[in-house]
Amino acid sequence: MKSLAITRVEAEDRRFPLHDGAGSDAVHSGAEYAFAVTRLRTDGPLEGIGIALTLGRGNELVRQAIEQSAPALLGRDIEEVMGEFGAVSRSLADDPALRWLGPHKGVVHLALASVVNACFDLWAKSRGVPLWHLLLDLDPEEVVALLDLSYLREELSEGDALALLREHLPGRRQRECVLRSGYPGYDTSVGWFQYEDGEVRDRARAAIESGFRALKLKVGSDDANRDLRRAAMLREIVGPTCHIMFDANQQWSLREAERMCCALSQFDPYWIEEPTHPDDVEAHRRLARAIAPIQIALGEHVPNRVSFKNFMQAGAVHFVQADCTRLAGVSEFLTVSLLARKCGLPVVPHVGDMGQIHQHLVLFNHIALGHEVIFLEHIPHLRDHFVHPAQIRDGVYEIPQAPGISCDLLEESTA
Amino acid sequence: MKSLAITRVEAEDRRFPLHDGAGSDAVHSGAEYAFAVTRLRTDGPLEGIGIALTLGRGNELVRQAIEQSAPALLGRDIEEVMGEFGAVSRSLADDPALRWLGPHKGVVHLALASVVNACFDLWAKSRGVPLWHLLLDLDPEEVVALLDLSYLREELSEGDALALLREHLPGRRQRECVLRSGYPGYDTSVGWFQYEDGEVRDRARAAIESGFRALKLKVGSDDANRDLRRAAMLREIVGPTCHIMFDANQQWSLREAERMCCALSQFDPYWIEEPTHPDDVEAHRRLARAIAPIQIALGEHVPNRVSFKNFMQAGAVHFVQADCTRLAGVSEFLTVSLLARKCGLPVVPHVGDMGQIHQHLVLFNHIALGHEVIFLEHIPHLRDHFVHPAQIRDGVYEIPQAPGISCDLLEESTA
Repeated sequence: MKSLAITRVEAEDRRFPLHDGAGSDAVHSGAEYAFAVTRLRTDGPLEGIGIALTLGRGNELVRQAIEQSAPALLGRDIEEVMGEFGAVSRSLADDPALRWLGPHKGVVHLALASVVNACFDLWAKSRGVPLWHLLLDLDPEEVVALLDLSYLREELSEGDALALLREHLPGRRQRECVLRSGYPGYDTSVGWFQYEDGEVRDRARAAIESGFRALKLKVGSDDANRDLRRAAMLREIVGPTCHIMFDANQQWSLREAERMCCALSQFDPYWIEEPTHPDDVEAHRRLARAIAPIQIALGEHVPNRVSFKNFMQAGAVHFVQADCTRLAGVSEFLTVSLLARKCGLPVVPHVGDMGQIHQHLVLFNHIALGHEVIFLEHIPHLRDHFVHPAQIRDGVYEIPQAPGISCDLLEESTA
Repeated sequence: MKSLAITRVEAEDRRFPLHDGAGSDAVHSGAEYAFAVTRLRTDGPLEGIGIALTLGRGNELVRQAIEQSAPALLGRDIEEVMGEFGAVSRSLADDPALRWLGPHKGVVHLALASVVNACFDLWAKSRGVPLWHLLLDLDPEEVVALLDLSYLREELSEGDALALLREHLPGRRQRECVLRSGYPGYDTSVGWFQYEDGEVRDRARAAIESGFRALKLKVGSDDANRDLRRAAMLREIVGPTCHIMFDANQQWSLREAERMCCALSQFDPYWIEEPTHPDDVEAHRRLARAIAPIQIALGEHVPNRVSFKNFMQAGAVHFVQADCTRLAGVSEFLTVSLLARKCGLPVVPHVGDMGQIHQHLVLFNHIALGHEVIFLEHIPHLRDHFVHPAQIRDGVYEIPQAPGISCDLLEESTA
């Protein structure tokens, strides 16, 4: 590999106002999606672009945390950095002056997400391949060297991770057929919290007509009857075979969650998402037992691999919604995916990146790790801001071909 | 009460370099204590000063988060704010543009700590009493109105909290004798990680001579023999009746923690502190069972009341080291103290404030909640920077008398 050094780091606070209730949920109103962007420059034309997702003005704090963290990479060669990325990312995460602001959570961890993703972008661009291709080309040993497995080893040691990767080498060829067929998306944009019933109805019908077979509805209304009415309407529109999912965005107490999950069960949800506080492993464990066989999805606010481990150990999650723009980037996403594979749990990412990076990662999870469920959230509101927006046709994600992680943003979209 | 409105908010990033290894531990070196300071101005001479503790340059991020959060209090009367403080603090914590940076953890939660503490300071100063006096003067209903009990109610409802407070009204008079006697401190400054053996020895002897009967030693060395040698030395110096505590500052994996806690048990520790990652409830639960009857202390990096609840539910903590400069201030500290009381666990605060606020809070916990253990960490390095530094004599904390929460900082201590 030719040498490619990181010569400058830049951080940007990019905002994307949403309109007419798009992006709203039971807890977060006035939605303005925001990306904390890391730009790793080189002496040549290549640059690595990474993002983390937040909402609104707080994003500026993540931008500043990137400026405190990323300079540690200055002067380093990208191949050398990625050859020992587990150690590099651990060292960034454990900067003593930033670690007390977490550890491994909140603003500093979101900044790390953006920086890590930029490293993967620069790496993939320097090799001239899309991220999924880069990852699938790595030996099991090279994949494991990307990961920080500290505080996980009683469940997932380096040996465990290697064994999982090697075990799934033989079936790869067969699973690679997904590279021709694509894989299904599900549509979150039909059922935002502030949408009127008529709007949900129209959007759901349009989504079904355009090929989606799975739709998400926001719940968590102060008036439980509103949730039930909208859920009944959505089930009636999509018919009995489509999947519908309900997302409470942490709105409920444990007691409320037990009550509402039982009430919503009549509409046969594929999952119920974020029923209560995302730190509360024990509440989710109790809820999972109380509402079985209804399944719980969560992850967009689980801060790190250690917390994900606890959720999995407790049987408190059924669909692991890891998000590489909320965890510490692509590498912690892969770590959580390995943990999930070991626990026999599907990973269906939350798409803080609007699916741009995750469209690559679900391919790796399916082909290299043998994750059977391959299914990805679709949120279209920011697609005009990307140079290479994810393409979805007839409800199916197409396979990205441009080098990198698909996060290049158009300049004119600057807030 | 006369009206006292908040007319201006200011935030400061104050740094306090430490020297010669003071403040060092197995994970955090190059110690520079930092306070993110909130200053709530009024039209009169009174101002509320609150602090949160971090380490080094990252503190600037908390300062900026205060500037994003605190203006919501502008124009409001302090009595009115404190009369419904549970709702006020929840509203601050759930600002949609900041909540995605947590929720309830990291930089934004530390900023909330500082803001909340400033509110309590202004409130106590406006009434002309020290914080402990203010809190003890409140009716049980007024105490409960200070608290945000969301996501706790299956363990601690408003009714539960009221019952706990009322149940302990009768014995108050007897417990108030602590207001004359003071209560014991323990000395953390004898055994910082980077101190040479000779320095630990000299400091431990001096601490015993000055009246301390409990000392803490930092462990978590790469060479386990160093930990064991220092522990043996400390036990020999203090004799069999003094308490010694070992603090690993999260350095160990679960397996290492099991091994080291067993090896250190020969020195009869009063507790072992932060053995592994502070998010890992399940690892602490397993460890507690593996090393019983050795007791586990933790809390300085437990981000919020929900996570503390999980630790208590799991039996994964024995000494609750809540810290009102790391949690969302005095009110979340009180919430965690009520939870701990309900679980029969002692609260021995971590003193991110160098004991300034906590010297008040342990009095409330003892007198109003009936917490039996009354014991407080002592870290002397910043005492010259406070207007009213905590006074400890013969190893005993004296009772603070100045109005407020004792966080006024001398101007000349600005970095």
